[in-house]
Amino acid sequence: MKTSIATVSISGELPEKLEAIAKAGFHGVEIFENDFLAFDGSPRDVGRMVRDAGLEITLFQPFRDFEGMPEPHRTRTFDRAERKFDVMQELGTDLVLVCSNVSPVSLGGIDRAAADFSELGERAAKRGLRVGYEALAWGRHISDHRDAWEIVRRADHPNVGLILDSFHSLARKIDIGSIRSVPKDKIFIVQLADAPLIDMDLLYWSRHFRNMPGEGDLPVTDFVAAIAETGYDGYFSLEIFNDQFRGGSPKAIAADGHRSLIYLGDQVRRRSGAATLSVAPMPERAVVKGVAFVEFSVGEADAGQLIAMLHALGFRKTAVHRTKKVSVYQQGQIRILVNRESVGFASAAYAVHGTSAYAMALEVEDASAALARAVALGAEPFHQPVGPGELEIPAIRGVGGGLVYLIDGTSSLGKIWEVDFVPTSDEGQPFPANLIAVDHVAQTVAYEEMLTWLLFYTSIFEAAKSPMVDIIDPAGVVRSQVVENRDGFLRITMNGAENRRTLAGHFIAEKFGSGIQHLAFRSTDIFKTAEALRANGFHTLPISPNYYDDVEARFGLEPQLTERMKAENILYDRDEHGEYFQLYSGTFSEGFFFEIVERRGYRGYGAPNAIFRIAALRKQIRPEGVPAA
Amino acid sequence: MKTSIATVSISGELPEKLEAIAKAGFHGVEIFENDFLAFDGSPRDVGRMVRDAGLEITLFQPFRDFEGMPEPHRTRTFDRAERKFDVMQELGTDLVLVCSNVSPVSLGGIDRAAADFSELGERAAKRGLRVGYEALAWGRHISDHRDAWEIVRRADHPNVGLILDSFHSLARKIDIGSIRSVPKDKIFIVQLADAPLIDMDLLYWSRHFRNMPGEGDLPVTDFVAAIAETGYDGYFSLEIFNDQFRGGSPKAIAADGHRSLIYLGDQVRRRSGAATLSVAPMPERAVVKGVAFVEFSVGEADAGQLIAMLHALGFRKTAVHRTKKVSVYQQGQIRILVNRESVGFASAAYAVHGTSAYAMALEVEDASAALARAVALGAEPFHQPVGPGELEIPAIRGVGGGLVYLIDGTSSLGKIWEVDFVPTSDEGQPFPANLIAVDHVAQTVAYEEMLTWLLFYTSIFEAAKSPMVDIIDPAGVVRSQVVENRDGFLRITMNGAENRRTLAGHFIAEKFGSGIQHLAFRSTDIFKTAEALRANGFHTLPISPNYYDDVEARFGLEPQLTERMKAENILYDRDEHGEYFQLYSGTFSEGFFFEIVERRGYRGYGAPNAIFRIAALRKQIRPEGVPAA
Repeated sequence: MKTSIATVSISGELPEKLEAIAKAGFHGVEIFENDFLAFDGSPRDVGRMVRDAGLEITLFQPFRDFEGMPEPHRTRTFDRAERKFDVMQELGTDLVLVCSNVSPVSLGGIDRAAADFSELGERAAKRGLRVGYEALAWGRHISDHRDAWEIVRRADHPNVGLILDSFHSLARKIDIGSIRSVPKDKIFIVQLADAPLIDMDLLYWSRHFRNMPGEGDLPVTDFVAAIAETGYDGYFSLEIFNDQFRGGSPKAIAADGHRSLIYLGDQVRRRSGAATLSVAPMPERAVVKGVAFVEFSVGEADAGQLIAMLHALGFRKTAVHRTKKVSVYQQGQIRILVNRESVGFASAAYAVHGTSAYAMALEVEDASAALARAVALGAEPFHQPVGPGELEIPAIRGVGGGLVYLIDGTSSLGKIWEVDFVPTSDEGQPFPANLIAVDHVAQTVAYEEMLTWLLFYTSIFEAAKSPMVDIIDPAGVVRSQVVENRDGFLRITMNGAENRRTLAGHFIAEKFGSGIQHLAFRSTDIFKTAEALRANGFHTLPISPNYYDDVEARFGLEPQLTERMKAENILYDRDEHGEYFQLYSGTFSEGFFFEIVERRGYRGYGAPNAIFRIAALRKQIRPEGVPAA
Repeated sequence: MKTSIATVSISGELPEKLEAIAKAGFHGVEIFENDFLAFDGSPRDVGRMVRDAGLEITLFQPFRDFEGMPEPHRTRTFDRAERKFDVMQELGTDLVLVCSNVSPVSLGGIDRAAADFSELGERAAKRGLRVGYEALAWGRHISDHRDAWEIVRRADHPNVGLILDSFHSLARKIDIGSIRSVPKDKIFIVQLADAPLIDMDLLYWSRHFRNMPGEGDLPVTDFVAAIAETGYDGYFSLEIFNDQFRGGSPKAIAADGHRSLIYLGDQVRRRSGAATLSVAPMPERAVVKGVAFVEFSVGEADAGQLIAMLHALGFRKTAVHRTKKVSVYQQGQIRILVNRESVGFASAAYAVHGTSAYAMALEVEDASAALARAVALGAEPFHQPVGPGELEIPAIRGVGGGLVYLIDGTSSLGKIWEVDFVPTSDEGQPFPANLIAVDHVAQTVAYEEMLTWLLFYTSIFEAAKSPMVDIIDPAGVVRSQVVENRDGFLRITMNGAENRRTLAGHFIAEKFGSGIQHLAFRSTDIFKTAEALRANGFHTLPISPNYYDDVEARFGLEPQLTERMKAENILYDRDEHGEYFQLYSGTFSEGFFFEIVERRGYRGYGAPNAIFRIAALRKQIRPEGVPAA
């Protein structure tokens, strides 16, 4: 698959853009005219820079308001084209994008436009250049790729072809089946962009909300599959206008873009077996079967607080590492590792972030296949020296530089507890609290990283993302989105904070980076759990009494149930599938906390309760330094 | 005019919100249910807090999905209402907002809904409460205030009335004339919100984009004028959902809201003479006739650099202050004051911001009337001790805490130069550069302050705001909007920076606040000006040669003209009214710069050239510390 990206898609000045694009692994780059115009070097200099970076210029764009102009505009427009042809020759590229005319003075008529393109093709041919025509979704006369294709067909010139753009076609919900009848040699290049499904003015949507394929909601895979069927084997080029990307890191955005194309190619190959896309095969998306463990890095000084909390939650120490200062606390299928090493990665994580859940292990069918896929998608593998005879568990770097271990039954999961650990029995014997599994892992990230990590998880693992939900913190909006698989074995909630005065933002600021802010454990009976927690001396997060009057009225609950919930600070929600109960711990270490949930068929995450949880947590954290909102 | 605002409109926790609302001068507050639920105190506590803050609770809201429910939902809905009535009685408020049903199980039918409201009214009456019905623009069966009114009419109960909301009516472009026939006593409360005109899904638009009346594009004044004609004399209450406000300062947002209502009342009073709104009369918006001077605060160390630049621009020193270290540099009608005082406000401004254009004087017809209006609209008046016999010029605090002097022909403008200053002649004699007036003042502000200052200027001065334009900085999007009056004597461009890596953001970060980032002077002949500048040793900002090839092709310019522009680093733009020429100085003091423009009928500000100007300026500022984007 030949990959390209438009310079307009990422932030920075031209040299930085080119460096980031090359580093991300793209083969080519579209030169967006303004990026070139604002740059000091000559077109020749820019061409050289691109080639020195190991890239090809796939397209020069945009050339606007060309076809259907009445005189005297028409003559001037052709003169303007000749000037752009000069620049292209100096740049060293042969393809220019002409987007459909939006000028109020332009005239309609397929044949008039075709005649203009025929002449432009003739002029381009003299210089060995080619002209691609793209229908803008808001073009004045042409806003549908089928009409653009008809113009190209009638222009009937070898140097004139069609440019397809997923956004323009999918935004207008044009039947993509129509692409299958375009000859592959008449598709000069394909541009790709996705976007969240929000019904709004097309131009505004396009200019501000585009994102990478797989990051939005448009059926970009269907679009590419239709193109693959034509036998097209040219460039797929990302053209993304996104306010957030314009302010983001060029390197990170370019890397996301490259991942999105590789992932897209893989999906299309699986669906259509399209050999023409020349996509390197990779293992399929890994099916997560559970969270095998979560590992905390702690210092000697604050290990006690975490361990006391684990005890109060009903966890017992069941094993210790053979050679490292790592203990395992277990309950049901949940294993929490507490790492007190003073050398190695966990210790380094502690030095930066303080006590933190810096690693999680996902159980998959085949860990090395999952690792191979992750690496093919640009994830950074992680290696750490292991002691003699100890297992090396495959791992990749995840959110905030933390680790995602990949662990399976064959190679490691069955063995790790035997090989690396020795059983032990705890000095403390807390009451077991009916906790059976990790229900979900909640990661807090800077808002501009959300799309990165959603794409990371959904491209490597068999999982889907939920629609975005706004969580109202007194100090600002926090965006929340969930990555989950069908069976609920992988559930990661992602909270994106826009400012540091929110609870989520405070966590990122104080922990010096994104990471796991809370862990939710699943209980088989939350009321029994609450009883055990009380016996263990656990402090549940106090919830405002006002909440219970409302929840009782809202859902028509039995007063008896509400009373019990109120006594135990349990929150309630319901969806069409069933009921949900939640309770929380207080916070420690700058905002980390635990949650316990009971699902009675319910599939959500209690989003309507988030404001109550936040209000209660803010009160706890305030003295440590959350400024009043 | 009775003013109110919903707690949901501003950020913070409930006590902070109430404090900010009271401080801003509102009479009442709508309690948004979630704000109350998340709060720890009982309804009685909240009621007491509100009253202690000197506020009245104008409304409790929202009560959702009420009318048209089939059994068994209907019974439960009425039970739910009774629970809310309990809360209202404890809060001490008599009015609840019922918004039109969006539930998929709800049934349509005007009479069914009317019967439900009749019963609800009966239940409310028993407790001395009232029920207001509001049509949501996306209600399932009722989405138009005319239909809501028909239901209220048929419910025919004294305790059931209509609630009007400008957003819901104006977003659907409903004829507001229909409001004039509603009896005033059946309008229980009026909610107000504005919004920028972007065509999108109504719910999404409403939840994220609402803003204060006058900050958006909806005809809110027409809406209120229609209501005033009914004789309505109740509360006007702001109900704003805005992501930016949710993360903003409670105090600043509340102050903006209060200003917007006072301004709105004033506009309606002028238009309709509506005595019922009980709006205190104030002087009309001040017509600005020019920028009388701009004053810089400088330190002894860096005064030389500014003065050298003024000389190079063709300014001559023409006067000095009688008692203070303030010099006047003049050219045409432009006066630049250079203040080197080491005590007083200018000196304090220098201590915080370094060399900066901390004050501007606007020439108006009647300075004391303009001041009175500004103060009535919540602006902070500024006083400074003056020496014996010196003039005190009325002033208010503006952007970044800087000053806006108000100066007129009668009281001060004619006299200031005679009374406070003595003429002098400059040691340097630069060539005059054909500069005749301040064309525009460019202020850079944090993005979240833009609406504040747009409302500040347009409510105090006779001026309109232009649509927002996106300026693409390599490090992010900068939003640009212009405040200008009809004759072009007041022209303020406002650039809102979202991150500190942009040129605008860098300025704010390094100057420790928003302020004037550049001054544009108008030339009668920019080529002659360029010649004089060259003779004076002025360094124009070098523009990329690529720009000129493009601009020539884009506008079909004569090559001779392009060559001249290129030689002088002059930029070009054109609109339907005429041509525009611009040139820039380099930067000094963390990003401040001068611009020179020539207008040949053109009415814009050269927005298409901004990316070239930014690229060129970034290169200059880089060594001083703008990080690579």
